[in-house]
Amino acid sequence: MKYGHKAVAGAMLALPFLNAEGKQKPNIIFFLVDDYGWPESSVPFGEEVYPRNLEFRTPNMERLAAKGVMLTQAYACPVSTPTRASIMSGMNAVHAGITNWVSMAKDEPSDATGGKSGSVVYEELESDIFRRPEWNYNGLCPDGPLSEGVNDVQIATPMVRLLREAGYYTIHVGKAHWSSAGTPGSSPYNMGFLINVAGSNAGLPRSYQGMDNFGNKDDLWNMAAVQNMTEYYGHEIFLTEALTREALKTLDWPVEHGQPFYLYMSHYATHTPVQKDPRFFDEYKRMGLDNGRSRFSSMVAGVDKSLGDIMDWLDEKGIADNTIIIFMSDNGGNADVKAKGGELHTACAPLREGKGSCYQGGIRVPMMVYWPGKTAAGTRVNTPVMPEDLFPTILEMGGVKNVRTVQEVDGKSIVPLVTKGSRMAEKAARTGQIASQRDANRFVVPENVSGIDPGRELVFHYPHQWKVDYKSEVDFLSTIICGDWKLVYVMMNTVPGQKVQDGVPFELYNIKEDLGETRNVAAQYPEKVEELARRLGARLRAWNAPMPVLRSSGRAVPYPDELL
Amino acid sequence: MKYGHKAVAGAMLALPFLNAEGKQKPNIIFFLVDDYGWPESSVPFGEEVYPRNLEFRTPNMERLAAKGVMLTQAYACPVSTPTRASIMSGMNAVHAGITNWVSMAKDEPSDATGGKSGSVVYEELESDIFRRPEWNYNGLCPDGPLSEGVNDVQIATPMVRLLREAGYYTIHVGKAHWSSAGTPGSSPYNMGFLINVAGSNAGLPRSYQGMDNFGNKDDLWNMAAVQNMTEYYGHEIFLTEALTREALKTLDWPVEHGQPFYLYMSHYATHTPVQKDPRFFDEYKRMGLDNGRSRFSSMVAGVDKSLGDIMDWLDEKGIADNTIIIFMSDNGGNADVKAKGGELHTACAPLREGKGSCYQGGIRVPMMVYWPGKTAAGTRVNTPVMPEDLFPTILEMGGVKNVRTVQEVDGKSIVPLVTKGSRMAEKAARTGQIASQRDANRFVVPENVSGIDPGRELVFHYPHQWKVDYKSEVDFLSTIICGDWKLVYVMMNTVPGQKVQDGVPFELYNIKEDLGETRNVAAQYPEKVEELARRLGARLRAWNAPMPVLRSSGRAVPYPDELL
Repeated sequence: MKYGHKAVAGAMLALPFLNAEGKQKPNIIFFLVDDYGWPESSVPFGEEVYPRNLEFRTPNMERLAAKGVMLTQAYACPVSTPTRASIMSGMNAVHAGITNWVSMAKDEPSDATGGKSGSVVYEELESDIFRRPEWNYNGLCPDGPLSEGVNDVQIATPMVRLLREAGYYTIHVGKAHWSSAGTPGSSPYNMGFLINVAGSNAGLPRSYQGMDNFGNKDDLWNMAAVQNMTEYYGHEIFLTEALTREALKTLDWPVEHGQPFYLYMSHYATHTPVQKDPRFFDEYKRMGLDNGRSRFSSMVAGVDKSLGDIMDWLDEKGIADNTIIIFMSDNGGNADVKAKGGELHTACAPLREGKGSCYQGGIRVPMMVYWPGKTAAGTRVNTPVMPEDLFPTILEMGGVKNVRTVQEVDGKSIVPLVTKGSRMAEKAARTGQIASQRDANRFVVPENVSGIDPGRELVFHYPHQWKVDYKSEVDFLSTIICGDWKLVYVMMNTVPGQKVQDGVPFELYNIKEDLGETRNVAAQYPEKVEELARRLGARLRAWNAPMPVLRSSGRAVPYPDELL
Repeated sequence: MKYGHKAVAGAMLALPFLNAEGKQKPNIIFFLVDDYGWPESSVPFGEEVYPRNLEFRTPNMERLAAKGVMLTQAYACPVSTPTRASIMSGMNAVHAGITNWVSMAKDEPSDATGGKSGSVVYEELESDIFRRPEWNYNGLCPDGPLSEGVNDVQIATPMVRLLREAGYYTIHVGKAHWSSAGTPGSSPYNMGFLINVAGSNAGLPRSYQGMDNFGNKDDLWNMAAVQNMTEYYGHEIFLTEALTREALKTLDWPVEHGQPFYLYMSHYATHTPVQKDPRFFDEYKRMGLDNGRSRFSSMVAGVDKSLGDIMDWLDEKGIADNTIIIFMSDNGGNADVKAKGGELHTACAPLREGKGSCYQGGIRVPMMVYWPGKTAAGTRVNTPVMPEDLFPTILEMGGVKNVRTVQEVDGKSIVPLVTKGSRMAEKAARTGQIASQRDANRFVVPENVSGIDPGRELVFHYPHQWKVDYKSEVDFLSTIICGDWKLVYVMMNTVPGQKVQDGVPFELYNIKEDLGETRNVAAQYPEKVEELARRLGARLRAWNAPMPVLRSSGRAVPYPDELL
């Protein structure tokens, strides 16, 4: 696929519903879960089944895993908006300057001291030590006339508009959260969706309960009340279920008219507020989980049912064989919310920390792809996948070629990885090369097959304070992963007198051998540290990455290679 | 057209975009204005230009009038929801039992003492003399599985779903207000729309100003905040303009794909709150209008611009020649709101009273139809038209035949009236039969051409108290119109000791000779009174019309023929 100045191939317009071979283009369902951690499923994405996996029953995710390919080393950004903007633009979130979630209202940075979002005043999110960096705190903005005069955004040609121009019937259901109210990106209609149900500037629902009108009550949070759902007000229904029903309603038209559809089924669950889905709660209590863990597992079970209901619907309509399903989470599981029960900081175990963090708990996410006839059933590949890869991937799935974009696209299509790569994994299992789940999780597709260098640089950068209380394991971290090696840049340790974690600015982990990032081996491998610090610095500098500013000196935190 | 048990002709599904002659089906735009009175336009719908007409400049309505046919005696119900439900169901609103506007939340009748709508507690709307009647206060509900167990609604096969099933790409933009939150009818998606922008249970916006987030502020009214419009929050834009832009965005897809569309452009304007549209306000101040009148005229000018923008867009896309435009108001102008300026009760002059009333000011509304190649340009017909006529009319325009509905449809298609009838009017003008606006406004198309008896019974019924202060000219009135004769049933005058208006239960007017209903001639024509009272009574009884209950006796107000 080539990117450059915007143009759409004429042939696409002439026969919009057919691919190059004259066949009906596949439908694509992107099933995105919010704040959903890598081990928070009965589908084990790891080399073994962890205790955390046992706290969930997700038969429909198991069903999808059995049909498709599991991407056991998929990454997202530490928080929601960067991942979503990355998928929509194909840019690395740091490159896009969207390194944090966007607040509900324009020009009110979510990381500002005394920042507020519409009528809601946040706690002080800026730290005593660092001033907030400059970043695109208004989020992503679609290119074109609407983008004129819109500030503090990344302008991009949105992936969904390209799909629509190529003949896809594009549907948005659920959470949007690409940008703040008052900017064009807050409306899915401007991103290329023909239909929008419930998507807005809101990053979370005020409530998942129909009895609470999904938050449309007389309190200050009305900007986070879920829209377009009035029919369920006052009913005993969980938002996940209601959104699923709305999604299925929208699919009749394209199916009846032979139009390929793109359904962005973007659940608000499992974001806070962690609330009981009464259909499933008791089951988890009976399993012995505490109230919080049971609440969260019930929310996950609701998401799992949604996936199953959609798969059942595809079967009933006879279109399952021509429908791709992509399953993913937008960042790691939230490990720092009391309502989720259990011990804090353990929700993503064996991964370290969770949402907001550049440790694996914050960025490693569950992901599966099922493309009937193209992906090999029940396989796993361990090649790292980034959120920006979804942009070229979905366009390739939709047969969209020679598109031009105003932005430089960083992602690489994973189509070869999930098709040829998964078939290679299947063969390896057949021939005994893969003998265990551990082997499967270490199966890396060679670059000449996948088109992706398994050791490519993966960069994540969180120059913000996520919550009101500074968390050294979450805030002000950057990381670069290259193959098995991972460098964590602890910005706080560049400040005189500060010592967090191991007290050094650079931590080095071998994530293949030390999944939990428990053994910092920086002292043993100074050359690897230097190599990765240089590469991380070069990337951040090339992307003009936002850096926090030290209050005492008025200077920005140095790029990591400046410390060498 | 035949109605019976539901079925759609197979041929429609096979060639959904073509009509019986193999031509592309026409696009249909229903441009509905809210609370917009008969004389509140520079297009004069009367026999002469009234002073009130001079307070408006509506060049685009003039442009539409010059292209199409004006229906100079079109009627709506006294308030919003009944008209909207009637259009969607084809039922007379009394027949449907939907005689008042629906409140925002389910099971909270808008006319109950201490009634509330979601978080907003209304003033006491029930009178001291009458208890509220039983009516379908939850509004209209689409038939099918969703309607199971839904109470206090009229269940109907919605017109828009029939259009969609016949291949129309159906779009809702603006105000919905068919039913209360918590019932299926509050979602345009359940009525058959593929797309919904901004339609919900809300009957008015809390604000028209983008700077107010269209009402999405931290106060109690968040259920009336307009949805799907976050991109405009904090911008200097009037809701009418924003909705028009959103509507035009939705039209690209059907036009590009050769699909006929139905656009329900349902403006919240000119409903309260009466707010200044700053683009037009000064012009009216300079004309010498007071602040209130200027505010209201500026809102009307915004609606007129919306109509013009849509017509321009159709021209630019080259589809104006195949697009029908229907222009209408959902009830009479509001004559009882101080913010509208001028003297109270005069907004609809020369008509008597306004919104809520069964006098002409409440029910006679502006209406125009333009069907390129079918309607004769610049013509007027005076045959009465009812809101329920829109159901069979729009289906006939869309070539939808042999549909079956769960409800009994009361309306008659006005297609012959606006096509053959308007051409007959054109010929009459050419041959000198019509020599003046007065002649034109008295031109009635004979039944053998229009298929509509010009003297058919038109029934309106408002057994409620509209506002907190009882208004004898508004509340507890019924009426029947047959040709030139109109009987008004003043329910309050059935109560011992009460005497309002002329003190009698029956008033009789000749609305052809006495448009302003200033001369009650009941005493001169007792046989006409008796005839019309019998006919009104028979209708109300057949439809099981809700009647208020006299508190002192516990008995319902008698049907009018019971008084004879």
